[in-house]
Amino acid sequence: MLIVMDPQATDEQLQKVREAVEALGFRAEPIPGQQRTAIGVLGNQGYVDDSTIRELAGVREVIHVSKPYKMVSRDFHPESTRVRVGAFEIGGGAAPVIMAGPCSIESEEQMMRAAREVKAAGAHILRGGAFKPRTGPHSFQGLGEQGLKFLRQAGDETAMPVITEVMRIEQLELVSRYSDVLQIGARNMQNFDLLKEVGKFGKPVLLKRGMSATLEEFLGAAEYIVAEGNDQVILCERGIRTFERATRNSLDLSVVPLLHEMSHLPVIVDPSHATGKRSLVPVMSKAALVAGADGLMIEVHPEPEKALCDGAQSLTGDGFSQLMQEMQSLMKYLGY
Amino acid sequence: MLIVMDPQATDEQLQKVREAVEALGFRAEPIPGQQRTAIGVLGNQGYVDDSTIRELAGVREVIHVSKPYKMVSRDFHPESTRVRVGAFEIGGGAAPVIMAGPCSIESEEQMMRAAREVKAAGAHILRGGAFKPRTGPHSFQGLGEQGLKFLRQAGDETAMPVITEVMRIEQLELVSRYSDVLQIGARNMQNFDLLKEVGKFGKPVLLKRGMSATLEEFLGAAEYIVAEGNDQVILCERGIRTFERATRNSLDLSVVPLLHEMSHLPVIVDPSHATGKRSLVPVMSKAALVAGADGLMIEVHPEPEKALCDGAQSLTGDGFSQLMQEMQSLMKYLGY
Amino acid sequence: MLIVMDPQATDEQLQKVREAVEALGFRAEPIPGQQRTAIGVLGNQGYVDDSTIRELAGVREVIHVSKPYKMVSRDFHPESTRVRVGAFEIGGGAAPVIMAGPCSIESEEQMMRAAREVKAAGAHILRGGAFKPRTGPHSFQGLGEQGLKFLRQAGDETAMPVITEVMRIEQLELVSRYSDVLQIGARNMQNFDLLKEVGKFGKPVLLKRGMSATLEEFLGAAEYIVAEGNDQVILCERGIRTFERATRNSLDLSVVPLLHEMSHLPVIVDPSHATGKRSLVPVMSKAALVAGADGLMIEVHPEPEKALCDGAQSLTGDGFSQLMQEMQSLMKYLGY
Amino acid sequence: MLIVMDPQATDEQLQKVREAVEALGFRAEPIPGQQRTAIGVLGNQGYVDDSTIRELAGVREVIHVSKPYKMVSRDFHPESTRVRVGAFEIGGGAAPVIMAGPCSIESEEQMMRAAREVKAAGAHILRGGAFKPRTGPHSFQGLGEQGLKFLRQAGDETAMPVITEVMRIEQLELVSRYSDVLQIGARNMQNFDLLKEVGKFGKPVLLKRGMSATLEEFLGAAEYIVAEGNDQVILCERGIRTFERATRNSLDLSVVPLLHEMSHLPVIVDPSHATGKRSLVPVMSKAALVAGADGLMIEVHPEPEKALCDGAQSLTGDGFSQLMQEMQSLMKYLGY
Repeated sequence: MLIVMDPQATDEQLQKVREAVEALGFRAEPIPGQQRTAIGVLGNQGYVDDSTIRELAGVREVIHVSKPYKMVSRDFHPESTRVRVGAFEIGGGAAPVIMAGPCSIESEEQMMRAAREVKAAGAHILRGGAFKPRTGPHSFQGLGEQGLKFLRQAGDETAMPVITEVMRIEQLELVSRYSDVLQIGARNMQNFDLLKEVGKFGKPVLLKRGMSATLEEFLGAAEYIVAEGNDQVILCERGIRTFERATRNSLDLSVVPLLHEMSHLPVIVDPSHATGKRSLVPVMSKAALVAGADGLMIEVHPEPEKALCDGAQSLTGDGFSQLMQEMQSLMKYLGY
Repeated sequence: MLIVMDPQATDEQLQKVREAVEALGFRAEPIPGQQRTAIGVLGNQGYVDDSTIRELAGVREVIHVSKPYKMVSRDFHPESTRVRVGAFEIGGGAAPVIMAGPCSIESEEQMMRAAREVKAAGAHILRGGAFKPRTGPHSFQGLGEQGLKFLRQAGDETAMPVITEVMRIEQLELVSRYSDVLQIGARNMQNFDLLKEVGKFGKPVLLKRGMSATLEEFLGAAEYIVAEGNDQVILCERGIRTFERATRNSLDLSVVPLLHEMSHLPVIVDPSHATGKRSLVPVMSKAALVAGADGLMIEVHPEPEKALCDGAQSLTGDGFSQLMQEMQSLMKYLGY
Repeated sequence: MLIVMDPQATDEQLQKVREAVEALGFRAEPIPGQQRTAIGVLGNQGYVDDSTIRELAGVREVIHVSKPYKMVSRDFHPESTRVRVGAFEIGGGAAPVIMAGPCSIESEEQMMRAAREVKAAGAHILRGGAFKPRTGPHSFQGLGEQGLKFLRQAGDETAMPVITEVMRIEQLELVSRYSDVLQIGARNMQNFDLLKEVGKFGKPVLLKRGMSATLEEFLGAAEYIVAEGNDQVILCERGIRTFERATRNSLDLSVVPLLHEMSHLPVIVDPSHATGKRSLVPVMSKAALVAGADGLMIEVHPEPEKALCDGAQSLTGDGFSQLMQEMQSLMKYLGY
Repeated sequence: MLIVMDPQATDEQLQKVREAVEALGFRAEPIPGQQRTAIGVLGNQGYVDDSTIRELAGVREVIHVSKPYKMVSRDFHPESTRVRVGAFEIGGGAAPVIMAGPCSIESEEQMMRAAREVKAAGAHILRGGAFKPRTGPHSFQGLGEQGLKFLRQAGDETAMPVITEVMRIEQLELVSRYSDVLQIGARNMQNFDLLKEVGKFGKPVLLKRGMSATLEEFLGAAEYIVAEGNDQVILCERGIRTFERATRNSLDLSVVPLLHEMSHLPVIVDPSHATGKRSLVPVMSKAALVAGADGLMIEVHPEPEKALCDGAQSLTGDGFSQLMQEMQSLMKYLGY
């Protein structure tokens, strides 16, 4: 439930409303805005009788939110949220941030080489997977903590913040020691307990859209994190599962502007997992920028043909360097 | 089946191969290329014993095509095809062509007003539906021939070629009298008899992708037209049906570069049907240009709120004018 | 729009309502029922101002139907429709009718052999395709009229009505000379002009659900036929297109009881196209009967491994014979 | 990789093969069978050079498994696995086991009443959710441990084993104290760390298919559990996400016989979540039995209209009792 106050409502009126909300057993979350003041009511499950609130002085409107999210919506928080990662800002009109690196961390040498290549090309944040969610247990599961060390070291040597996936609650402490951003993978988008714990942790989070998640479900998942007090959440479109198999997934690029309408959170795009084809990554990266993406996450591998994971969709260092030049030109054209 | 000849193969060797193909009861279609000469074998159904061909002098390779298309593939015809509509060329690196107009033709006045607005904004081709495929029989089915007359008149007065949908074989003569391009709608993409007749007709065709058509099926449908001798076919991505309902369909923009890899035919995008939301049309139009679309088809209505059909996805004249300016700037940036 | 009358409404009141409807330019279709009398309003496109009707004596309720169908709905026509094919009745609680035969008619011998085998096993109606919708133009397109002759002959010799697909309006006369039921394939489910002409033709129609057709669209397509005066329409679920490729399509068996709730038309199931796997056909045939299917359409081929089309999903004569015995036992259990 | 031995292979030959496998750095898992002996090779990632193994005495065949699962496949383990829950056996031809109860545990009274109703009707296992995965954080999240106590108490008083969902690793101990079966929900099907821990735990597991999980992914997920040494895994089809919204999900009933071909694990069906509509649950329950389901999981609520969760798909006690009678008759017909 959202209580919208009159622009002229006094502090005293606001306080009365908060008390009324709490008297009903809920939590009142004031949402200061330049145009209007509002109070978000959290903790209600199902319909709430609003008669005691609706008639209070200064209340303009009571909106019953039937959606599974509230705090991540633009109605609730009209201004765009910027997520800070090291020196970079993501969202809210900031220049798009490029995250790049290998799908999985395979060795110190591979990680260092990839880091130097993407840094030289102009990437901002270094990615690499140490814990890998694989369809079957007999596939390469990642190097674990050893991988995290290689990633941190490569980030430090190239002066880039790093991002890596966390798959279970017990890994949170460990992964946080090494990583600047916590990535939640598509398969864990509705692992609600992980979301809650990540929300309490306070580090920036990159949340990937589930393979068949509607936008409502996607924002509902983000709400789990934000409801714990952490609004530093980056949404990531990475392709949805459809009948079409000519691409690995179907990149649903229209959701970039649509999510910007619905939510104040930044939205980035992963064209590598979305298309699954190296040849499509550059053109779709640029299309994503034009669609308004606040950043990109791109797989780059020094030797894609030897990659233990997702080689077919990884750019080479040279391919990425070429793409970065094209993107820098395009960003300039777009006014960043 | 595709027979690839040695670069040094002589005309005589080529002729021998053709005779061998015809002796098997098939048709041999020579495919001249700058790098290599090839012969397409048409008319075979199922597996063909190639032993009598494989051993002929000058034959480098015999490729058994298991795909449902051959003549529309880039393997078969490496150079991009340009489709000519009036003074415009579509595909093959030509500047993107913008088709615009109302979903359905509602009256002489509405059509004229729409035509003047889109022309003033810089559109190249005028669209409008006279025969409308509607989910149920009790909805507005279009003005029929009267609508065609309004469309032609509007096109003539504003000096724009026109495009409109043809829904049945018996309408072909009629629609062709009024329209410069024959549009096949998504629901008829696998109306194979209509495709064959349209193929014989010789006018440029715009073929929309079916709601759940794979690229293989899409190209197979185009093959029906081209196999009848008409290579003036424009492919149109208009969104696919997925689980997601936040948009009307899911715009599958990755298929633009992918279709360009697979086929020599031009590819355009219809962001209006794909997204179903006015606010998303401009940004996705520009993303489509960056993805390499050879053109766009955009719904514009003088008064969208009064439209008999698809008002929610139609731009106003002003909205379209604004978009055209942005697109012209973008095309310039892209080097057109 | 549906006008529901009071149970006590007089004939005079009914007549007044009809006149009011016609004064608005629409057609009034009385729907006699045992519980209530209603009047369907046909021909309106978009919203209708009902104020002149709502206030008439005897009117209990005016229902604005926003769905694309009306005449096929159970609200409009509460009693189940039975479709008559030769001596058989389909729907409305009649014993399930089994249609069987090869996917495509390949030769006189193949057709005769298949007919004898399915007849001996207990099938009721003979199927076989003479015009085949194929993804690409280079695949076997069916024997055409020659095939129709073989089918008719096989049906006559084995005393079975026959069913075959019609793909274009100009074939209607021809196909009707040979076939007792006109089949509309999944790819033509929204070939609305074909539906209209089939509706005028007056022969029983079997309408297959499109690959990605919602039930609303499916019933909207059936409405096109019924709106032309032909209520002898059989709906056929044949699997929908989803992300899953372990089966050819995903058999959506829940729609059998759901369509029975929504519509008065009979519903049959095609487990062969739905699953695409011979081993799954028997078990899913029986599950379909339990789900309330009014019949089944099953592919049977004397030598599936040599079939020109869909061999992998065709039962052998022996396999079908075994299945028929199991189904006859099950039908007995189900009380038919 | 799977090494199939000759039926006459000696123990010594078997031992040599195991040593050769271990020399390659992998684990050899002997799979005793009545027809043949085989050795599963675990731990390999990617292709393995089998030349040192293929030539050993007694080796009949070396099968390179490219699928993400091996131990759950029927090739690996031809005999059906029976899962034991209390006095009941699930799978392998045992009579179908019916699990029933409310979606979520709401109070002691509601749980007790539901338990008595389903027990009286003939259900075997009691279900109820204490930890509820909800799309948004502001919805009812379940009663937690208090709910577990109510469930256990209700199970004890009605002499039924109980099943409930576990959502996070830290809950495993707690949930296991109260529950006889551990349920993994659809949203957690690829929460691989949870799967591994559940695998180590040793209690029977019910694994629900993810909303858009292919069968390969479903079996890959089951493999994570079985690879940890726990083969007591029940697969549960609960509907997949498709374009169709007339039902909550699309019940993919064909996968029941298909999973039985592919895997030795028992397969049950949840018609409540699959259809989302009370009226469809009974008919689809019976269709599932005919399709070969080894059991059913059905939502029953004493007062569905007051349910905090999923009321629209819950049967009343009376409705369930009626269905149980029909199912008992059907099971008798089916020979159980």
